[in-house]
Parts: sequence; C-alpha cells; structure tokens
Amino acid sequence: MGGLFITIEGPDGSGKSTQIKKLAEYLEQKGHAVILTREPGGTKISEKIREIILDKENMEMDPVTEALLYAASRAQHVAEVIQPALESGKTVICDRFVDSSIVYQGIGRGLGIEAVENVNRIAVKNILPKITFLFQLCPEIGLERKTEQGEKDRLEQETLDFHQKVFEGYQGLKALYPQRIVVVDASRSIEEIHKDIILAIEKRMKG
Amino acid sequence: MGGLFITIEGPDGSGKSTQIKKLAEYLEQKGHAVILTREPGGTKISEKIREIILDKENMEMDPVTEALLYAASRAQHVAEVIQPALESGKTVICDRFVDSSIVYQGIGRGLGIEAVENVNRIAVKNILPKITFLFQLCPEIGLERKTEQGEKDRLEQETLDFHQKVFEGYQGLKALYPQRIVVVDASRSIEEIHKDIILAIEKRMKG
Repeated sequence: MGGLFITIEGPDGSGKSTQIKKLAEYLEQKGHAVILTREPGGTKISEKIREIILDKENMEMDPVTEALLYAASRAQHVAEVIQPALESGKTVICDRFVDSSIVYQGIGRGLGIEAVENVNRIAVKNILPKITFLFQLCPEIGLERKTEQGEKDRLEQETLDFHQKVFEGYQGLKALYPQRIVVVDASRSIEEIHKDIILAIEKRMKG
Repeated sequence: MGGLFITIEGPDGSGKSTQIKKLAEYLEQKGHAVILTREPGGTKISEKIREIILDKENMEMDPVTEALLYAASRAQHVAEVIQPALESGKTVICDRFVDSSIVYQGIGRGLGIEAVENVNRIAVKNILPKITFLFQLCPEIGLERKTEQGEKDRLEQETLDFHQKVFEGYQGLKALYPQRIVVVDASRSIEEIHKDIILAIEKRMKG
C-alpha cells in the first residue's frame, strides 16, 4: 500500500469541506495524486444508500438499520474507490469514515462502540487511515452554521441532546485511537486551521 | 413472546410463495392471526434497500456491501414488523430470513458463515424462527421455472455455478440447525408439499 489515507472527522458545520479542498490543493502542489471522497457516498451504489439514510421520509429508521446501511455504503466505497486508489499509490482524503459511525451510531444512538466496530470490521477490509483530523466545535455553533445554510437532513434534524452526545463521543475518540488522531480547534480562522493541518501532515510524512 | 415465528427457505422457483399462501389460509382457519412477510423487504425502508440489492444496474456491488444491505433490511423488518407482531401473539410467516444470507452471501459469495452470522447478530435482536421449512430443489429445475416466469433480477442472473454453491449451502443448513429445520422435497405436487408442512406444524405445536 503506497498511498497515504487521510480522514477528516467532526460535526456538520465545522468547516471540514473547506479544509479538505485546501489540503488537496496543497498536496497536489507537492506532487501527490489526490483523490477526494466522502461518506456516506463516493460511489454510485453508496450514493443510493446515502439517499435512504438521509431521506426525511425515513424517520422510522431503526438505529441498527442505520448502522448497517452506513457500513454497507462504506464497504462499497472501500472496494471501489479507496482500496484501488491506495494500491496505485494515490493519496486519499475522505470526509468521514468509521469514526463517524462509532460516534453517531455507537454513542449517539447508544448501540455501543463494540457493536459498531464489529459490524464495520468486515466493511473496511483492514484499511484504516494513517492520520485522522478531528475537528472540534461545540454543537450549538455547528448547528447554527448549518441552519444558516438552509434545509436540514434527517440526521441534522436530531435534537440538541443527540448532538451533545455526538460531541462527547468525538471528545472520546482521541483517547480511543491516540496514534492516528490529531485534534483541530475548528473555532479559529480558515487560514489558522489550514496551517495546523499542513504542519501535522508534514510531521507525519517525515516521521 | 406469544407468537409463532415460521420461516420458509429455499431457492427461487421452488414454490415457496404458493405454499406460504396455503399455510396462512390453513392457520387462519385454525384461529391464528397470521402475518405474511418476506425478505428483503417487508417495510417501506426495507423495500427501498431491496431495490438497491436487486437492481441490475448495480452489477459492481461488492459481496460485503450485499451482505450488509441484507442485514440492514432485516434489522428494519424485525424492528417494525416481526418483533411487534410476535409480541402481540401473532403468527409470522416469513419468506426467507437469516438462513438465506448464510447460504447466498456466506457460502455462495464465499464470505464465510461466521462473518455473515456475525453481521446478522445485531440485526435480528435475538429473534429466531421456531420452525424453518427448507425447500429442496436442484438448481437446474429452479432456474428453468424462473426463466419461464420472465425477466431475472441481479441475483437470478448469476451463473449456474453460483446457484450450485447455493444449493450445496442449503443442503448444509439442516446440519447447522437440526432442531428448527424441516426439509421439504419441493419437486412434488402442491398438495403433497402442503400436507407435509401441515403435519410438521401440527407436530411442532403439540410438542
């Protein structure tokens, strides 16, 4: 596996998309072949699964169904996009990965970290990120930013209590996977955050 | 759990639907409140997942994605239909259940019985059938019957070799779960098969 696998995690509205674009530009200038992708989605089949997950008509969705749909979407994404790209030496930057399932379904929905890890083990085919940027932002600010952006999907419509649990779940991730997780204070300016990310990447690539 | 949970397993074209209808009529005459349902499907969300699984456009689907989608559909089906019906004392007859995943994905796709059982453990919430009728029919006859009925979906389009593996997988199920599985020779007449099923049900309800 020649390629570098980077994931970005954190709540909606924390500025992940902006930073992913800037990071990709930086790495491309450095000569990397970069693939940008996101979960749930990233392939035709994964996008179809994503539609079911986020559809506001599906409010009766069972938490276990939700966790299994995310894992299914991920399995296709790994098989079709992530694994082939890494094998051909490309750098893959993925917006959300297994950590999102651990936090949203394992902690937010209360299914437990172990059950969610268990279901995802078969999905990822032993492919885990080398470095994960964890964007930290208190849930009130994230939701406020999202509300300004317009209509919310099924998960964004959840209560503040759910998002509070998710926030605490994210806080706990660093302790679960200390080696690969780099915490980013997402309340700062775009340039400050970008600088931090570049520094961490350079350090990791030298190390 | 007052209700009786019956599942019917076996290859396409083995006459499951006909027998399910006849069994339901029989049990209703005996005073049971009967729910007929099927997998993948049985709820609005499960039907949407079923569409993705069977869509001929999705030929690039990874075997792990397929297994996880079946499990997701099942989780919703159990939560919304099977569990509430059984809890209210109803008899549930389900066309395909976990055994189909064991045979099609575990054996047919080569993912292994353990991996498929593992993914399904969280989906079924400890609800397993009391009695499972396993329709046996050699794959050539099953496929021939289906071909006469018209267009085939993504799974039916698989090679005879895949269906041969599935056939052998079904043969092995009886050994895996001897207590609940009743093997039915599906090459006989509708009335002969129906009589066998009734006898087995009566015996089970007395025992």
